Amino acid sequence: MDIVMDAQALNAFLERDFPQVAEDHRVESVGPGRLVARLRVNDRHLRPGGTVGGPSIFALADVAIYCAILSRIGPVALAVTTNATVDFMRKPAAGRDLLAECRILKLGRSLAVVEALIFSDGEDEPAARCSMTYSIPPKRPQNSAL
Amino acid sequence: MDIVMDAQALNAFLERDFPQVAEDHRVESVGPGRLVARLRVNDRHLRPGGTVGGPSIFALADVAIYCAILSRIGPVALAVTTNATVDFMRKPAAGRDLLAECRILKLGRSLAVVEALIFSDGEDEPAARCSMTYSIPPKRPQNSAL
Amino acid sequence: MDIVMDAQALNAFLERDFPQVAEDHRVESVGPGRLVARLRVNDRHLRPGGTVGGPSIFALADVAIYCAILSRIGPVALAVTTNATVDFMRKPAAGRDLLAECRILKLGRSLAVVEALIFSDGEDEPAARCSMTYSIPPKRPQNSAL
Amino acid sequence: MDIVMDAQALNAFLERDFPQVAEDHRVESVGPGRLVARLRVNDRHLRPGGTVGGPSIFALADVAIYCAILSRIGPVALAVTTNATVDFMRKPAAGRDLLAECRILKLGRSLAVVEALIFSDGEDEPAARCSMTYSIPPKRPQNSAL
Repeated sequence: MDIVMDAQALNAFLERDFPQVAEDHRVESVGPGRLVARLRVNDRHLRPGGTVGGPSIFALADVAIYCAILSRIGPVALAVTTNATVDFMRKPAAGRDLLAECRILKLGRSLAVVEALIFSDGEDEPAARCSMTYSIPPKRPQNSAL
Repeated sequence: MDIVMDAQALNAFLERDFPQVAEDHRVESVGPGRLVARLRVNDRHLRPGGTVGGPSIFALADVAIYCAILSRIGPVALAVTTNATVDFMRKPAAGRDLLAECRILKLGRSLAVVEALIFSDGEDEPAARCSMTYSIPPKRPQNSAL
Repeated sequence: MDIVMDAQALNAFLERDFPQVAEDHRVESVGPGRLVARLRVNDRHLRPGGTVGGPSIFALADVAIYCAILSRIGPVALAVTTNATVDFMRKPAAGRDLLAECRILKLGRSLAVVEALIFSDGEDEPAARCSMTYSIPPKRPQNSAL
Repeated sequence: MDIVMDAQALNAFLERDFPQVAEDHRVESVGPGRLVARLRVNDRHLRPGGTVGGPSIFALADVAIYCAILSRIGPVALAVTTNATVDFMRKPAAGRDLLAECRILKLGRSLAVVEALIFSDGEDEPAARCSMTYSIPPKRPQNSAL
């Protein structure tokens, strides 16, 4: 149940290994089984009408959920999404960042299930709900290649 | 945001309109945007090994989520599930009832999204997570036929 | 790519290990990466209005997909569903059996993904679409390092 | 069942209304209930290791499914995704475009369900499977009561 990577460590990991992702996404806080990440919204994320499009919401959920898992198991670059479901419920507010609030529902040896609610910054009702399953590669004696 | 059907009203509705469902399922409590329902587990629900099978978990989530919506909009028998996703995360504990804890994420004019976590009675960690979208038929001036 | 259990072998397996399931469900045919199963609809499956309810559709998809996997890997009783998604698209025709037409999309060492379209017998358009992920337990004694 | 927008009309629509999307995505062909779209993969879509990331796969499925619906109902810009599920099954081949092969499963008055299989160009086995539900806004002038 220990946190092995905090927000600072996760942001440093993103900047080094996923520099394109790190441009727009930032881990805000990490707690026991919880993580909040932010998408700094800019023109690239907007659809006609000025709201953030579905793919940008998916991308935020993906990085937030990945980081939630890494916060517990460390920088296992090979963890991969096997399943994702998203319910798009409300149009995001125009001109606002998006926040993903993640909750780890299961962290097993080989599968993790994490849920994220996506909010426009300052709003009470979620724009979207997402859950993802990640497959975690088996641990090896020396993991040096990673 | 008002509760228009409480647990007693929902159970009476199930007994009258869905007697087969009412045999095993019971609404335990209703709160603002929340509902808890119980599956009284018996031999019919069990798979080899003595745990409740996936279809029984799905059926509990379905009736709980349906009732969560009715608690807010009244006995609209024609609301139908259009989409369901389930993550099965832990084997239910043998010989225990199952509880579904629902949370309404969206209740729009035509679509509702509700999530349920499924627990073995007495356990802290969920056996399953489910979300469903319901399509709500448009309201008509006089709804007497329903 | 070989079929290791045909329809007859799968039905015998269901009757022995899942007798309650075998009462209503039957594998009709097995081909390379394909399987068709039937739900013999009776009163127990019907909702008010005379159509088959969502949980019965889910149960048919579950047994059909499970058998599709077993047709390729043999009677691994411990394969378990980890994720299921269902789109309910059309009301099943009253008084008709349901057929599940499965297609194996992935059969990996530890995860399988199978899709099923559910039809009312004799109809061209699907009542529902379902996909499930199954977790397949690691093989055996010799594999002790995992 | 008529096709009201062909590949050329859909690409012109994307270029005008979604210029950022049109940079990378292109409708290849449209048939009855079918559509194929291409993601022209470039460095922006790649994750460490040189394969296309999940968000780019999601984005391709989203635009392909949207265009599949428009091919039948015309340029209804307000159709919105309400639900999406993705199974990520195989790592895309490095340095190849991705193709989305869509099949319309339901096109109702208010909801459409479309499925897409995602392939690396030249591969036989899908990298991912996706299904999405779109909500179609009610048609207007005559339908003022809604």
